[in-house]
Amino acid sequence: MSDENGADALLKSLSGAGVDVCFANPGTSELLLLDAMQKAGDFRAVLCLFEGVVSGAADGYGRMAEKPAATLLHLGSGFSNSMANLHNAKRARSPMVNLIGEHAYSHQSLDAPLASDIVGHAKLTSDWVKVAASSKTLPQDGVEAVVAASRGRIANLIVPADCAWDEGGPVAEAPEQAGLRLPASAAVADELIALARDETANAVLFLGGNALRGPGLEAAARVAALTGWRLISEVFPARLERGQGRTVVPRLPYFGAQAEAMLAGTTHLVLCGAPAPVTFFAYPNASGELTPAGCETLMLGRPGEDVGAALVALADQLDAPAVSVAERAPAAQPADGPLTPKAMGSVMAASTPAGLIVSDEANTCGALISPFFDAALPHDWMTLTGGAIGQGLPLATGAAVACPDRKVLALQADGSAMYTNQALWTMAREQLDICVVILANHNYAILHHELGRLGVTDPDPRTSALLTLDQPRIDWVGLANSQGVRGVSCDTVAAFREAFQSAMRQRGPFLIEACLRTA
Amino acid sequence: MSDENGADALLKSLSGAGVDVCFANPGTSELLLLDAMQKAGDFRAVLCLFEGVVSGAADGYGRMAEKPAATLLHLGSGFSNSMANLHNAKRARSPMVNLIGEHAYSHQSLDAPLASDIVGHAKLTSDWVKVAASSKTLPQDGVEAVVAASRGRIANLIVPADCAWDEGGPVAEAPEQAGLRLPASAAVADELIALARDETANAVLFLGGNALRGPGLEAAARVAALTGWRLISEVFPARLERGQGRTVVPRLPYFGAQAEAMLAGTTHLVLCGAPAPVTFFAYPNASGELTPAGCETLMLGRPGEDVGAALVALADQLDAPAVSVAERAPAAQPADGPLTPKAMGSVMAASTPAGLIVSDEANTCGALISPFFDAALPHDWMTLTGGAIGQGLPLATGAAVACPDRKVLALQADGSAMYTNQALWTMAREQLDICVVILANHNYAILHHELGRLGVTDPDPRTSALLTLDQPRIDWVGLANSQGVRGVSCDTVAAFREAFQSAMRQRGPFLIEACLRTA
Repeated sequence: MSDENGADALLKSLSGAGVDVCFANPGTSELLLLDAMQKAGDFRAVLCLFEGVVSGAADGYGRMAEKPAATLLHLGSGFSNSMANLHNAKRARSPMVNLIGEHAYSHQSLDAPLASDIVGHAKLTSDWVKVAASSKTLPQDGVEAVVAASRGRIANLIVPADCAWDEGGPVAEAPEQAGLRLPASAAVADELIALARDETANAVLFLGGNALRGPGLEAAARVAALTGWRLISEVFPARLERGQGRTVVPRLPYFGAQAEAMLAGTTHLVLCGAPAPVTFFAYPNASGELTPAGCETLMLGRPGEDVGAALVALADQLDAPAVSVAERAPAAQPADGPLTPKAMGSVMAASTPAGLIVSDEANTCGALISPFFDAALPHDWMTLTGGAIGQGLPLATGAAVACPDRKVLALQADGSAMYTNQALWTMAREQLDICVVILANHNYAILHHELGRLGVTDPDPRTSALLTLDQPRIDWVGLANSQGVRGVSCDTVAAFREAFQSAMRQRGPFLIEACLRTA
Repeated sequence: MSDENGADALLKSLSGAGVDVCFANPGTSELLLLDAMQKAGDFRAVLCLFEGVVSGAADGYGRMAEKPAATLLHLGSGFSNSMANLHNAKRARSPMVNLIGEHAYSHQSLDAPLASDIVGHAKLTSDWVKVAASSKTLPQDGVEAVVAASRGRIANLIVPADCAWDEGGPVAEAPEQAGLRLPASAAVADELIALARDETANAVLFLGGNALRGPGLEAAARVAALTGWRLISEVFPARLERGQGRTVVPRLPYFGAQAEAMLAGTTHLVLCGAPAPVTFFAYPNASGELTPAGCETLMLGRPGEDVGAALVALADQLDAPAVSVAERAPAAQPADGPLTPKAMGSVMAASTPAGLIVSDEANTCGALISPFFDAALPHDWMTLTGGAIGQGLPLATGAAVACPDRKVLALQADGSAMYTNQALWTMAREQLDICVVILANHNYAILHHELGRLGVTDPDPRTSALLTLDQPRIDWVGLANSQGVRGVSCDTVAAFREAFQSAMRQRGPFLIEACLRTA
């Protein structure tokens, strides 16, 4: 007989199953879960001041650690605050175990002020939703959630408060470690081997998932070198390995016309862990599908499958030799001058340490900065997988918790940064080794572009004003300072270089406001 | 034949139906709706940098204007960011018309990165959800949404992008103005008249909705004076009229034991626009229902019904004479000393102008401050109706837009303020006449209380640390300054008095950080 309550038994079960980090924004109904974390051994609870930080951090943790963090979320309303970044995490196929508080069973019929349809909320982000039935079975529910999450899913475990406070069942046994990815169906391998002999083919390996990393990326490069096929990454990959010693894989451009140009003439599009390319948005009189007319599509691995292993198998079947990647010369840096995204890219790529992790929510600036990093030391690059802005700072937070020995760089558009600026506080509290670079153009720049693409080429000045963030200008250094993060603002290349190089040498959170010259 | 697109015709239709304010956080799929606002005449578009600000502001606008504002929200992810404050707005029965962008019909099958189940999201906040079928019928959809919202509902109109850009239908006729409230069923009036003659009855009129304002409140006071029945407000009313010349209606306390004590001995509980009282949360071995055992419940009006009119009818049937409200002496103010909620209450209540609007998200401090305002000049008091924190600053924003000639006071707990701190930027941009008072105790103070009530009386220091916001302390003045709002910090009564009185004399946004003495 145990004197532990359900919460204690649950947290010990999660810990035994390898989950030992929780990003938390608790309320009354989750307090016993929070308390249980302290008793469960080496659990690290990371407090976040908004649930969008919680879910974005768990996403960043999952992408880098390749195992789930837990989250602690307060009822339906707290969960709804987490949903935008859960949308991104779902698209990234990040593993995550959400512990969502619920009123005790006896309270659920009373329509108390915070009552809501939590199952309805949770189903919007994942098909794994379970409501704990009792404190006795709660520990087993926990390990089932870990198993589900370990397949790259968001597992939502709803915990009525009485299941936490009643006497707990036995601590559940840690499950078999499930692999993050199911094997890819390699049914197209024969077709690809035949295609490799077809010299008229203009094929593209369209890469996502673990085709963009490690053995998968190396194998893709071997196949490409042998066949002449091109490698292209999906627009917004969850995690891409880049830098010296690694094959350069260009990303498909965001804008449809540029993407169409890159794919023009492709006769065979081989989907390697990425879905068929489509435009982000629809436009009048334009197709949303980007696969060229007449191009044949072959599926080597679905998103979430182990397409890396499938690529290794394919490269081996083709007897494709190993590829050595030539060292790339860094781009020339301007000595000084007004700050532009390209100048920043040249400066940053020359100064980053090996093992850097980049959280890229640079939006319109990102495409200009990113190419410079092909010549940087080896690093990981994470992008805005689901398009729900406000991901970047939380994602960096979670990556820094997952990888405490690696420097994290958050390339962050200003408009998007505001959504989850509370992440700065967690960076300060945990003294995470993150350099935040705010690309301050004081605009929703993407929307000015998009307005023209929708045919509004001469917008009413009042409409333009509603896409502009300079009345008032946000003081990013002041905002960071107010939450305990030091920072500096710069508007020249020389000042930015000094600030960035200094930030790379020190540890702990630091913010650089890069005031960009806008056209 | 019109050369207007669907967006133009929709916005003109909304404007014709009396909707002329929109709180907006647009994305690509909503740009034509934003552009159309400029063409629709006197439409005022208010840019917010996070969707939780959008929905909270629309709630504050609806509570004060008693007509709907529109919102502009970007697809499912943008909508999900608005949901916590929509939960509060739903509980407040605030009228609101949400315009939610969606991909064009041709794009919906492509599973583009931002695709999600928007209808599923919207149904969680309201039963009024409509997806526009075409640009031709979109204007009529808009006026139907206004009619639905006018009954105190959240109307969700989902607008696929092609419905905005295709040629529009005719501008729809403004509908009949629906009243905000349905008539209350007065079937209990005879019982109440009999009850009034029963001298053994210990009855309570439990007030919510428009029983807390204007004629409804006056009538309740007449009935109470005649019968000796007590008046008690629901715990978290949407809007309560208070101050000199108005009858004092104590609010039922948040904590269950205090609420039970207030209701003890009640033989008849007359529900006047408020639901039967229940505790916010459940606790081990405690009932969530607060109606005393054996007490009879009578329903004069359901939440959302016109219970004010029902109370007037009842008072008239009883021939209850008019009540004159005696002037109340203000509480003595300490000359100086450490800053406490009670000292702040005494200072503030003596200095506020007539017509003040209070947004109360003061949480644990609120119950200590609030009573002092009974002696303040007449004002409106709005509370956290649904318990989803992060309401206060957005609610103040919307109230200030609705009532530009009235001063708004946001009494704001620090932990809750962080959720939607982006509201400060909109206050600065629109130069709204709002004084924000941050009650800085650097704690989730309520959770320390609640932990004890859950039986954890000697918590692990690490658990307590996770409920504490002082590592690092947030610099609220710095945070406000960074978003364009001036402010001052104080930690003594004298300094607070000077700052507050100065803030009441000036116009425009201002923030006072009140550093509270914590026990």
